[in-house]
Amino acid sequence: MARYSVNSLARLVEHFERMPGIGHKSAQRLAFYVLNLKKEEADAFADAIRTAHEKIKKCSRCCNLAEDELCSLCKDSGRDESVICVVEDPRDVMAFERTHEYEGTYHVLHGVISPMNGIGPEDITVKELLARTGDGKLQEVIMATNPTVEGEATAMYISRLLKPMGIKVTRLAYGVPVGADLEYADEVTLTRALEGRRVL
Amino acid sequence: MARYSVNSLARLVEHFERMPGIGHKSAQRLAFYVLNLKKEEADAFADAIRTAHEKIKKCSRCCNLAEDELCSLCKDSGRDESVICVVEDPRDVMAFERTHEYEGTYHVLHGVISPMNGIGPEDITVKELLARTGDGKLQEVIMATNPTVEGEATAMYISRLLKPMGIKVTRLAYGVPVGADLEYADEVTLTRALEGRRVL
Repeated sequence: MARYSVNSLARLVEHFERMPGIGHKSAQRLAFYVLNLKKEEADAFADAIRTAHEKIKKCSRCCNLAEDELCSLCKDSGRDESVICVVEDPRDVMAFERTHEYEGTYHVLHGVISPMNGIGPEDITVKELLARTGDGKLQEVIMATNPTVEGEATAMYISRLLKPMGIKVTRLAYGVPVGADLEYADEVTLTRALEGRRVL
Repeated sequence: MARYSVNSLARLVEHFERMPGIGHKSAQRLAFYVLNLKKEEADAFADAIRTAHEKIKKCSRCCNLAEDELCSLCKDSGRDESVICVVEDPRDVMAFERTHEYEGTYHVLHGVISPMNGIGPEDITVKELLARTGDGKLQEVIMATNPTVEGEATAMYISRLLKPMGIKVTRLAYGVPVGADLEYADEVTLTRALEGRRVL
């Protein structure tokens, strides 16, 4: 930034610049936004960062984000504990919750098995998932990892561990997304949509 | 966010969501980025926000951003004090400094006169600029407000105050931006570029 700089501003810009999808110009805009906040607002923002980082842990049961020992979903006695929906990321839990259709519990893997990136089953929460199979209540595990090569491989790996225990393992349906234009659907998706066709 | 939420996460997302150009999805991505930071990094980020907000004030002379009484440019004895470049925003100072061509001083208006938005001359730093004209050193004021209706009006307003004092007031040249495609230049810009043509 040439000869001229304001140290504490430059440092703030740097922090924003490290964030995903934020370039130098955006980082500068965000830093100026912070400068123009009222003192209470800036303090509240700084506190929110610190608090979120300190308070949020993994739920000891489903590994979802939680502020207490158990996450709010595991605490909820109204959820159907005979079903576990296995997802990669806490954001996927939020996505399913937005449907208002799923009443079961979740398990968050916090990643996928990816030999290319040196991530094995022990680096994600497979062990914690297996620990949940022993209570006799569990009937079905829905594999809801992403429809990517690594998501598929992870779903396959986990299903091979669970099937011998007599647990039903299912996978999300593949097909064309609702509202999409068939013209732009890729071949693999269309093939899967044909394979999975249903009688009307 | 449906029935499910983690309070401190939701609060952090809210803070990011208020920022310019950040929608809900981006805010969520940024909040998760913060959660995945190391503790020291998250603390440093929170500190950077607090520190920047506390430390950065207006330079008592040019109204640029400063951590001390004077900004680093006003402290610099190597700058030519006979010229003041008047800009709307501290970011414009950074833009001029990046050219490495300007050796004079600056004056930051922190806005433009805009009757539509209820911003008059007393809401920007016109008074502080006039206070700088009395020392006898000043020879030229370059009006470098944005080439917008309000920027023009502000430049005209200030030039009318300064001219009677015998100070030379200039305006940035208008023309086609370097590297641009003439085909896409608007009529007003092209007209101004023609008017301002020079002998080669």
